[in-house]
Amino acid sequence: MAVEWSGLSPALLIRLDRDSGQPLRAQLEDRLREAIRGGRLPGGERLPSSRELARELGVSRGLVQDCYHQLLAEGYLTSRTGSATRVARFAATRPPSAPAPQPPRPALIADFRAGVPDLASFPREDWVRAVRTACANVANADLDYGDPRGHEVLRRVLAGYLGRVRAAAAVPEQLIVSSGFAQGINLVLRALVEAGIRCAAFEDPGYGSVENSETLRAAAQLGLRVVHVPVDEHGIDVDALAAGGAQAVVVTPAHQSPTGVVLAARRRQALVDWAVREDAFVIEDDYDSEFRYDREPVGVLQGLAPSRVFTIGTVSKTLAPAVRLGWILAPPALAAAVAAHKQVGDRGSSTLDQLALAELLGSGRYDRHLRRMRSLYAVRRSGLVDAVAEHAPSVRLTGLAAGFHAVAHLPPHAREHEVVAAARERLVGLHAMGGYRAVDQDAPAQLVLGFGNVPERAIAPGIAAVADLLC
Amino acid sequence: MAVEWSGLSPALLIRLDRDSGQPLRAQLEDRLREAIRGGRLPGGERLPSSRELARELGVSRGLVQDCYHQLLAEGYLTSRTGSATRVARFAATRPPSAPAPQPPRPALIADFRAGVPDLASFPREDWVRAVRTACANVANADLDYGDPRGHEVLRRVLAGYLGRVRAAAAVPEQLIVSSGFAQGINLVLRALVEAGIRCAAFEDPGYGSVENSETLRAAAQLGLRVVHVPVDEHGIDVDALAAGGAQAVVVTPAHQSPTGVVLAARRRQALVDWAVREDAFVIEDDYDSEFRYDREPVGVLQGLAPSRVFTIGTVSKTLAPAVRLGWILAPPALAAAVAAHKQVGDRGSSTLDQLALAELLGSGRYDRHLRRMRSLYAVRRSGLVDAVAEHAPSVRLTGLAAGFHAVAHLPPHAREHEVVAAARERLVGLHAMGGYRAVDQDAPAQLVLGFGNVPERAIAPGIAAVADLLC
Repeated sequence: MAVEWSGLSPALLIRLDRDSGQPLRAQLEDRLREAIRGGRLPGGERLPSSRELARELGVSRGLVQDCYHQLLAEGYLTSRTGSATRVARFAATRPPSAPAPQPPRPALIADFRAGVPDLASFPREDWVRAVRTACANVANADLDYGDPRGHEVLRRVLAGYLGRVRAAAAVPEQLIVSSGFAQGINLVLRALVEAGIRCAAFEDPGYGSVENSETLRAAAQLGLRVVHVPVDEHGIDVDALAAGGAQAVVVTPAHQSPTGVVLAARRRQALVDWAVREDAFVIEDDYDSEFRYDREPVGVLQGLAPSRVFTIGTVSKTLAPAVRLGWILAPPALAAAVAAHKQVGDRGSSTLDQLALAELLGSGRYDRHLRRMRSLYAVRRSGLVDAVAEHAPSVRLTGLAAGFHAVAHLPPHAREHEVVAAARERLVGLHAMGGYRAVDQDAPAQLVLGFGNVPERAIAPGIAAVADLLC
Repeated sequence: MAVEWSGLSPALLIRLDRDSGQPLRAQLEDRLREAIRGGRLPGGERLPSSRELARELGVSRGLVQDCYHQLLAEGYLTSRTGSATRVARFAATRPPSAPAPQPPRPALIADFRAGVPDLASFPREDWVRAVRTACANVANADLDYGDPRGHEVLRRVLAGYLGRVRAAAAVPEQLIVSSGFAQGINLVLRALVEAGIRCAAFEDPGYGSVENSETLRAAAQLGLRVVHVPVDEHGIDVDALAAGGAQAVVVTPAHQSPTGVVLAARRRQALVDWAVREDAFVIEDDYDSEFRYDREPVGVLQGLAPSRVFTIGTVSKTLAPAVRLGWILAPPALAAAVAAHKQVGDRGSSTLDQLALAELLGSGRYDRHLRRMRSLYAVRRSGLVDAVAEHAPSVRLTGLAAGFHAVAHLPPHAREHEVVAAARERLVGLHAMGGYRAVDQDAPAQLVLGFGNVPERAIAPGIAAVADLLC
């Protein structure tokens, strides 16, 4: 044998004993049968090649091949020409862990779920190219644990981007890269609790209630008192906010989620004045800012009061939720606290993904993708407006200045959950405003109509199929 | 003009007014100068091409080109043939945000820092290939928010891998994909606090103290009482653990961090007995299990008591910390609680990265990489042993059964921090055991010698340069 005897396979956690009296081949067969029968090697699991296993054990390749042939013959293993030897699917005696398959549900004609971008438009090629560039260029030292705030290259590129596109007062030192909005709000709330904040306000309608919202659950888990502040056609009611005693508020100024209202100029100023006056903090969820259809460019609130506003952004709506990258632009005095919580929580986001995003942003491909998506959503938005005008002309749509959802106002007698259930029977996914409300009493009947991930060709048929339910 | 007038550039957050009386070109120039002078467009920031900007604004391309030429002439912009127009580096009047550059520190001959794998061996090509395969094959629907536990494909592949390599009792339903050990321990501790656990034990030496350990800080932030349990040459002292009143313990059985001791068979059984008897939980940091040099394959503790043991794994030591992926194998009764905290905390890890890791595991490339790394670390380990034997023969090394660090035992009169400081003067990075201790009184003088990221050629010169300090 050319290789040194070890008797140990790390790849299979199997050990052979040369002094046991039992031949090595018989030992190997026994160990493999035991592992397969006991479920430790489950059906479908790939085994090392005979060459690899022989080298690990320090035995001849022929011995391993003989053993594999024997177990193939016994039905423990399967093998196809040109691919790896695997454990046979029916070999394991352990009960299958997967639940019994559900009967397939018929596909929906259209699902007007909000908050989902067009998943088919995810720029797969651009992402792979960006990861390839990142992997080719990353320094070895940058493959270690890094700055918990994120890689300096991405923070520099992001600061430039947020200044250019959002009129943010952004420097790399105030940016913390996160894995999206959910982690961003967690980190910000932790830093605020540490800074003595005890009560946080949320828009209503907005995240809904603790029962259905991770954001509100995160606040509750941190021991924050949660108050809800109504939203009207100009955005959050700042007088009500001021009366509620909160020391921080989470808002969606660019396109209120879910009413679609854009925070009015006077309210923007009032909100910032409140924060400055009360030493309070505004947490700006810069939701849907990338997709505006009107002619009024509005920057982030953060630019008005960088020491009182956190701005949280994400690529979940611009690229896809599957990417899990976002950022927090924090007041200078609190950036270190946010970064410390990121460090304790997960020691930073994937450096390779961060460098890929920096590459997308720096190369202009991110802007190009946004332009493409703006056109695509504008077409779907028109399609929705036209379909409602044609099939359900009495239904008013609001909230269409940005993003990819609208609010449909149902007649006074309608009940949201009945409309949703009846639409479901007709294979159309509709979604009630009720799920976004904290206080639901006497609220007008409304639906939140997302069109981001509804193909253009499905919009009119989807609306037509449920038109009578909406009127 | 072929394009429709809009006057708005989302890419630059600039708006032109056709009714202002000022020519459009002059308006555009003014807006750009303002944004550059005010620092909103920082030096180096890429501008849209003249074609793109003209299309956004709905003006002629020539108008934008004329404007860019003017600002190039004025020094606000720079441009090289074939690349994008960018803001000139010296144009911004905002003070530069980067701290003054430090004088470069001379490179170390060798830095024997523990816990870092060989970063130069990160399989860049394999990772890019795996991401490409993942991006090519991922279903559109899987680009949405997914199962907070992680993608089913990865959890299935991981369950098979952990059964095969670590003799774990693993089913996909008990696995939660995390972003590495740090997030894993956070999620597990949260679930345990929720389940009523009030006191957690940690190995000493182990994570050090709250001042220098994120893990202990995470425990403290959750309100857990922390106790420290001594580690001897057989691993954690289970009698001391039982006497300490903890209801959970974090251990590193495969290769104790940092002493390098392998938990003895009798202690393994005693630890599991303790957990079963006390309804307590063991959190198994499966540290360094992939790299063992002895002949004794030892599976995870989890296989002995799946209902009382959490096993946490990560690719930070096998691939690189920059990847940020890991997993938690949880007791059946607590898997849902861990998943719920993952959902609130960040709504799941990157699906694309998860599918890339599944591809690496399923294709056998991960095993191949581990084989390569085992050989590489074995060579470095021998190099360290030989260098110490030659240059500092009185120094005893222990903890070499696995992983890529050892413990060097210094003579009784030595002071760790003095040795570390003196070595630093000679451009060698040494690291004191003191940083890993919770209780430091009268502890013997030791160093933790990492050799994972020290090139083979640097090991002997590094040891030779500090040999007299060690004896």
